[in-house]
Amino acid sequence: MSELVVVTYDWAPPPPRGFVRDLRIRWALEEAGLPYRVESTPFRDREPEHFAHQPFGQVPWLKDGDVSIFETGAIMLHLGAKSEALMPRDARGRGEVTEWVFAALNSVEMASLPWALLQFSGDTSSQAFLLFDDFVKVHRLSHLEPILAEREWLTNRFSVADILMSDVLRLIDRFDGLAAFPACGAYVARAIARPCFQKALADQMAHFAKAD
Amino acid sequence: MSELVVVTYDWAPPPPRGFVRDLRIRWALEEAGLPYRVESTPFRDREPEHFAHQPFGQVPWLKDGDVSIFETGAIMLHLGAKSEALMPRDARGRGEVTEWVFAALNSVEMASLPWALLQFSGDTSSQAFLLFDDFVKVHRLSHLEPILAEREWLTNRFSVADILMSDVLRLIDRFDGLAAFPACGAYVARAIARPCFQKALADQMAHFAKAD
Repeated sequence: MSELVVVTYDWAPPPPRGFVRDLRIRWALEEAGLPYRVESTPFRDREPEHFAHQPFGQVPWLKDGDVSIFETGAIMLHLGAKSEALMPRDARGRGEVTEWVFAALNSVEMASLPWALLQFSGDTSSQAFLLFDDFVKVHRLSHLEPILAEREWLTNRFSVADILMSDVLRLIDRFDGLAAFPACGAYVARAIARPCFQKALADQMAHFAKAD
Repeated sequence: MSELVVVTYDWAPPPPRGFVRDLRIRWALEEAGLPYRVESTPFRDREPEHFAHQPFGQVPWLKDGDVSIFETGAIMLHLGAKSEALMPRDARGRGEVTEWVFAALNSVEMASLPWALLQFSGDTSSQAFLLFDDFVKVHRLSHLEPILAEREWLTNRFSVADILMSDVLRLIDRFDGLAAFPACGAYVARAIARPCFQKALADQMAHFAKAD
């Protein structure tokens, strides 16, 4: 099997630490038990080489032998195909995980990321914030809540979809946005209690602390 | 082959017409030459049946025989696997299309949808709007521009990734956000000149007009 390398920034400012997206990839690799290395790319002066691997200058990207993959969602499906710990092998099971991968990234995070950006910038009383607060809570969490009240994981087993959805919800929780959604909160608690999440988080924190 | 059914709202208010997401699925089905039917679900009083197919009460979902698929991204990968007109068959080619599918939905649309929502609500002078204007233009379009200046499509051929990316950019263009990005604008023009886009758009407009 070819070597797997996760590439992330060499440093990050303290506020997003613990939430930089290489965490999702580290977590998936830990769950799969796949060996990997972590490499760094400059945060401050992003090089042409970086944009060649990741067109928007974001992280992470994954090197798998001579293939380089960008976008966390694409990396998750790629790793899912390598390990049954991350995604079932049958077509129906893969299809259900894929639906929830996109639901996490294009329905829930589409609403929660702008909400969180306004929280980071301290803008929580504007009309715009109220629009996104409604988008997140009324149009997303209120529908997710009864689903998660009845299920341990999004499909009938833990998968990459849960890594993504729980990490998306974790950022909402950071700003106390899950207070009225106890099943969403309990789901995040279940997910982050997993030893593979704890290792991925500790490794990311140590990686950025090393560069201070 | 099982019957394909696209489910969308029975009616939509005029502003989003031409941008409701069943358009992306209609367009893909037209490009693939796959026969399909369109069914309606109530826009105003969304039924439990709707939430059973689409957890957030959004549209579209796709019925493929006894399988029901939600999330446009998941539907696109499902259709891509059915037709080489939408996605190449080799692993490398499928991987590249998948990266750009997520780039369209989780990098560009993640920035452009909040921007467009504030445009729709007439809020274009707040601090929050300026944050998202920067997110879209400086962090996304300025990086996409040199890529699209050198390529006809995102990968070496037209694919579902181009359906998604061009439709994401089309909503930015609606509010004149591509003015400083001519290669992005030319890419949208190339995409919407395709007869399959024109048919999908006309069919969506007729579908909603019928219910007025």
